[in-house]
Amino acid sequence: MGELLGVAVLGAGHMGADHIRRLDRVVSGARVAAVADPDTARAEAALGGIGGASVHGEAEAALAAPGVDAVLIASPGPAHEEALLAAFARGLPVLCEKPMVPDPAGALRVVEAEARLGRRLAQIGFMRRYDTGYLRLKALLDGGELGRPLMLHCTHRNVSSPPHFTSAMLINSSVSHEIDAARWLLGQELTAVTVLRPASSARSPEGLADPQFVLFETERGALVDVEVFVNCGFGYQVRCEAVGETGSARIGDDHGMLVTARGRAHEEVPQDYLVRFADAYDREVQSWVDATRGGRVTGPGAWDGYAASVVAEAGVRSLESGGRVPVALAPRPGLYGPGGR
Amino acid sequence: MGELLGVAVLGAGHMGADHIRRLDRVVSGARVAAVADPDTARAEAALGGIGGASVHGEAEAALAAPGVDAVLIASPGPAHEEALLAAFARGLPVLCEKPMVPDPAGALRVVEAEARLGRRLAQIGFMRRYDTGYLRLKALLDGGELGRPLMLHCTHRNVSSPPHFTSAMLINSSVSHEIDAARWLLGQELTAVTVLRPASSARSPEGLADPQFVLFETERGALVDVEVFVNCGFGYQVRCEAVGETGSARIGDDHGMLVTARGRAHEEVPQDYLVRFADAYDREVQSWVDATRGGRVTGPGAWDGYAASVVAEAGVRSLESGGRVPVALAPRPGLYGPGGR
Amino acid sequence: MGELLGVAVLGAGHMGADHIRRLDRVVSGARVAAVADPDTARAEAALGGIGGASVHGEAEAALAAPGVDAVLIASPGPAHEEALLAAFARGLPVLCEKPMVPDPAGALRVVEAEARLGRRLAQIGFMRRYDTGYLRLKALLDGGELGRPLMLHCTHRNVSSPPHFTSAMLINSSVSHEIDAARWLLGQELTAVTVLRPASSARSPEGLADPQFVLFETERGALVDVEVFVNCGFGYQVRCEAVGETGSARIGDDHGMLVTARGRAHEEVPQDYLVRFADAYDREVQSWVDATRGGRVTGPGAWDGYAASVVAEAGVRSLESGGRVPVALAPRPGLYGPGGR
Amino acid sequence: MGELLGVAVLGAGHMGADHIRRLDRVVSGARVAAVADPDTARAEAALGGIGGASVHGEAEAALAAPGVDAVLIASPGPAHEEALLAAFARGLPVLCEKPMVPDPAGALRVVEAEARLGRRLAQIGFMRRYDTGYLRLKALLDGGELGRPLMLHCTHRNVSSPPHFTSAMLINSSVSHEIDAARWLLGQELTAVTVLRPASSARSPEGLADPQFVLFETERGALVDVEVFVNCGFGYQVRCEAVGETGSARIGDDHGMLVTARGRAHEEVPQDYLVRFADAYDREVQSWVDATRGGRVTGPGAWDGYAASVVAEAGVRSLESGGRVPVALAPRPGLYGPGGR
Repeated sequence: MGELLGVAVLGAGHMGADHIRRLDRVVSGARVAAVADPDTARAEAALGGIGGASVHGEAEAALAAPGVDAVLIASPGPAHEEALLAAFARGLPVLCEKPMVPDPAGALRVVEAEARLGRRLAQIGFMRRYDTGYLRLKALLDGGELGRPLMLHCTHRNVSSPPHFTSAMLINSSVSHEIDAARWLLGQELTAVTVLRPASSARSPEGLADPQFVLFETERGALVDVEVFVNCGFGYQVRCEAVGETGSARIGDDHGMLVTARGRAHEEVPQDYLVRFADAYDREVQSWVDATRGGRVTGPGAWDGYAASVVAEAGVRSLESGGRVPVALAPRPGLYGPGGR
Repeated sequence: MGELLGVAVLGAGHMGADHIRRLDRVVSGARVAAVADPDTARAEAALGGIGGASVHGEAEAALAAPGVDAVLIASPGPAHEEALLAAFARGLPVLCEKPMVPDPAGALRVVEAEARLGRRLAQIGFMRRYDTGYLRLKALLDGGELGRPLMLHCTHRNVSSPPHFTSAMLINSSVSHEIDAARWLLGQELTAVTVLRPASSARSPEGLADPQFVLFETERGALVDVEVFVNCGFGYQVRCEAVGETGSARIGDDHGMLVTARGRAHEEVPQDYLVRFADAYDREVQSWVDATRGGRVTGPGAWDGYAASVVAEAGVRSLESGGRVPVALAPRPGLYGPGGR
Repeated sequence: MGELLGVAVLGAGHMGADHIRRLDRVVSGARVAAVADPDTARAEAALGGIGGASVHGEAEAALAAPGVDAVLIASPGPAHEEALLAAFARGLPVLCEKPMVPDPAGALRVVEAEARLGRRLAQIGFMRRYDTGYLRLKALLDGGELGRPLMLHCTHRNVSSPPHFTSAMLINSSVSHEIDAARWLLGQELTAVTVLRPASSARSPEGLADPQFVLFETERGALVDVEVFVNCGFGYQVRCEAVGETGSARIGDDHGMLVTARGRAHEEVPQDYLVRFADAYDREVQSWVDATRGGRVTGPGAWDGYAASVVAEAGVRSLESGGRVPVALAPRPGLYGPGGR
Repeated sequence: MGELLGVAVLGAGHMGADHIRRLDRVVSGARVAAVADPDTARAEAALGGIGGASVHGEAEAALAAPGVDAVLIASPGPAHEEALLAAFARGLPVLCEKPMVPDPAGALRVVEAEARLGRRLAQIGFMRRYDTGYLRLKALLDGGELGRPLMLHCTHRNVSSPPHFTSAMLINSSVSHEIDAARWLLGQELTAVTVLRPASSARSPEGLADPQFVLFETERGALVDVEVFVNCGFGYQVRCEAVGETGSARIGDDHGMLVTARGRAHEEVPQDYLVRFADAYDREVQSWVDATRGGRVTGPGAWDGYAASVVAEAGVRSLESGGRVPVALAPRPGLYGPGGR
């Protein structure tokens, strides 16, 4: 496919460093051309001696660096809007980690800017769309074997939450994955959300509403429920069961090995999302590199980032009020198709 | 253990006939002493030539028949209240199929009558308490391995609903099993119920709200959700996952045999509750016979039948209104203990 | 079905006591009429106050006791031949625990005695034929879904072996269950056996060849392999996978509950065969009582007991020699049908 | 890591073409520098327009082409010896598809040639060592949780065999994977082999001994059994259960999705090894590229290729004779370590 794609990576934290490693060591057809981080020493460290990449303190300088063909945004969420708009201004394709933009108003500005450009440049980092299990479930639903989908039952559990994790972040950081996955699996927008609070676990930090139970309604009447429990203690578990008119299907229960010892047959449960979804991250970035080199955008786009932002914000309001909150999306620009998502 | 327990069976329909067979052919220590059904020909047929049993058109006559030591009520729900009060009047131990009494007011009258007697005579037919899976889950929860229980996720699916099944019956006939199971597993009363209506399946009869998604709150803050889908088409499935502060446990996913053929590994799904819970019914009746011969009542009692009736009635109101409906129980008579259930 | 079947139980050890409890408390239609054990105090203790049963020091006296309609033999194997012949002499139906008779010559004498009677009286206690999993596998094989059976892969593991368990007993006590199950599932006689000795586990008693790996050939070319490991340490596991021309099926891997805690999803493994096969024992005895009251013999018979004895004896010779040992059965008397087993 | 590794691919058949795609599109750090195939049109087609790669009719010419840093041998087995020796002569690192060299004498010549060089250059394509399941099982065994390994039970099933597949190829083509996996998992050489022939399936081609059941003994007394069935009809299944002194573990039974429809819960079974082991092939080649660029050899080497060849050849002799055939390895050159494999 010719020259390697030169990628500017914005942000050299945990996720940025992992993407730098992936672009350099795992993915075919790309190279790291520039890294930007306010902490340039951290950027140097993340590079780890990879040759041919420049280091910058400012995102803008990285976008302007020689050899940059595309951008991967892994900086903190509040910096995303400015970075996306700068990439659009230069006509650079972008892979932007989620959340695209945390607040709905900013997310809408990104959608509108891309719509004015008249062509799609942004892919948003909803990597579950690249997980083998989700891909099989999507294919099954689209193939019609289960009939019309009526319900999705989802589970999202983490061993423990990082410091400073808030009750709202269970919705807008954790459940945002299920928001996108539900929209994608069902091919429908979410129209309302209700957040219920069971008793919080004594193992969760004081004041954190954890677990939560979230209910989404969709435009054609399906119901999506999500247990989110970020201090479950025993592992990282992401499961999804789709129930249709003629059958059901469940992903997330498989195991790599069954061990029988000390009176029990047990399966390993992964402890971390980078383990559970390692292959999905690899496939996501490879797919983005391949499409970008071919001049295409094939993954979830700015509209998906915007819709997730609006639904998550409604969810946070429901968490606070205890009641059902309708979801109100702006009209979808023609760039994103009538029903394409 | 001495003499066989002589049982009067009231009602010779599908369930009554199955209990007659069970008392005669499966269970140890009991015999059928009398059968009552308005259709005495049906009663004769259900007996199938079992010797030593008298046939009656009236329940009262069966209770008074010679050799009757105890009563098994398998007549239609509206006849239960009168039959229970008649058995109490004669001091006869009773095993009463669910629902104990369909309306809460009648159910409360039964509770009050038994409380006035000052001793327990009634066991209610919540046979899930005798299922191996539920028993293991109860033992696990009581043993504390999962920590404090926070959520129960339940599934209740039937291949298809019988004729004349109404939207309310998904709550007061099907979900009533989960109502009792949740109270028993958690050791808590249910305090509110909300019934949600996803899009109904095109395979469900016109006008039937099927599936439904039911949410219960408990007195100590646990959340119980139930998918009930009585025309799912593919099998009879009853599953329950308990989520506690330190772990989760799931029952209802086991299989007796894994077959690999024609490109798929498959497990059989039972098509009928009498198959899925055959052993539970046998254990329930054996346990009742054993306890009764020993002069004890060990199973779910009239208070459990009353509580299920009140919760189910609140659920039906929520189905109609779409909103959350609190559950209001009468004070519990001392006969049923402070928290014993 | 009229009068209860009066059963004389011979032997009041672990298994005899369990059968006494089963006849009295679990099974319908039977009662314990007599118990015989050289240690009459042990017989009294096993009875535990059950009324209407006489106690004897000699088997012959129990068979002659009033009210005895049938016999259940649970005495040590060397006593079986005499007890079976005594029961035949009195025309009493018998349920005889395995091994029917330990040595092939004695087993053949039992077959010949029953053949001379001209009617079947004996059922042998191969209770796996009453296990739900085995029954489903048998039905699947007979139904032809897997095509012609080519292989059976079997596992037979115990937590630990009792004292005085010998290397030969892995074959003639443990694997004898697989010998009968294979003959029954396949509907074929076994024609040769080879016993291999992997390294013995350091956890097995000094001098015990444990595990062993046993290979059986059948008259129509199927191959049966059995891992037998009686000090595996972690549980009681009995599994069987049948491989046919068009598919395979596996039993023995199901679980009643999946628990996720402390980083692992685990299933309980039963520790004891009385737990794993509790229902099979109940069904076996109930089925025998029902058939006997109806004047029939429906279970595995004397020919099956004889065949198992011959194959096990060949297996022990292979264990000693390390080589393949052909199995030579006497001609099958017409009483047992041309291919019925 | 600097310059891309220029790889000469020898052989442009099914497997060679797949490796060309992998080097170009999936793996990071490598590029296709040359392709050799007697049919140069096929080589051109396999390249599919990849720039910068030369095409050759002779392997030797491809090794000498500009930009070639390493060699991937995917030509037919009989051509491997000459290609390996030519690569050794040029000091080029090699990844050689299995079988390294089909006949033991030729395989030994490769071992001796590499030993004379005094440094390792060859990695053999036993890709199961890169499969997630096998890696977990290896880690579990090495970690000691199962205690000393006593047995491996293996299954290797294909939907159907390709044309011209012979009875011997079940051993030297299919079971050769289990031969290497067993040596690697146990860290022991195999010392004897016995091949049993159950009745062949009517669905297998006339004259093909299929299935076969293969038994290996190891130097420290473990027993390895393999069911190989290359016309099983229902899917591609590779499973392995390790049994140790304190536990067992099983891989190959996981599923990506459980679907319940039409009365059955089913899991998909992959139909092809390129599906089942796609990730393993990717990891194998990425690992080889990474190690080669770092000047190291980390995977299975020439000694492993030689040992597999000797064991497979003994297996074919056992297939023909029906008896047990001892395995006689040449002394291991010091280059391959005392027990390293």
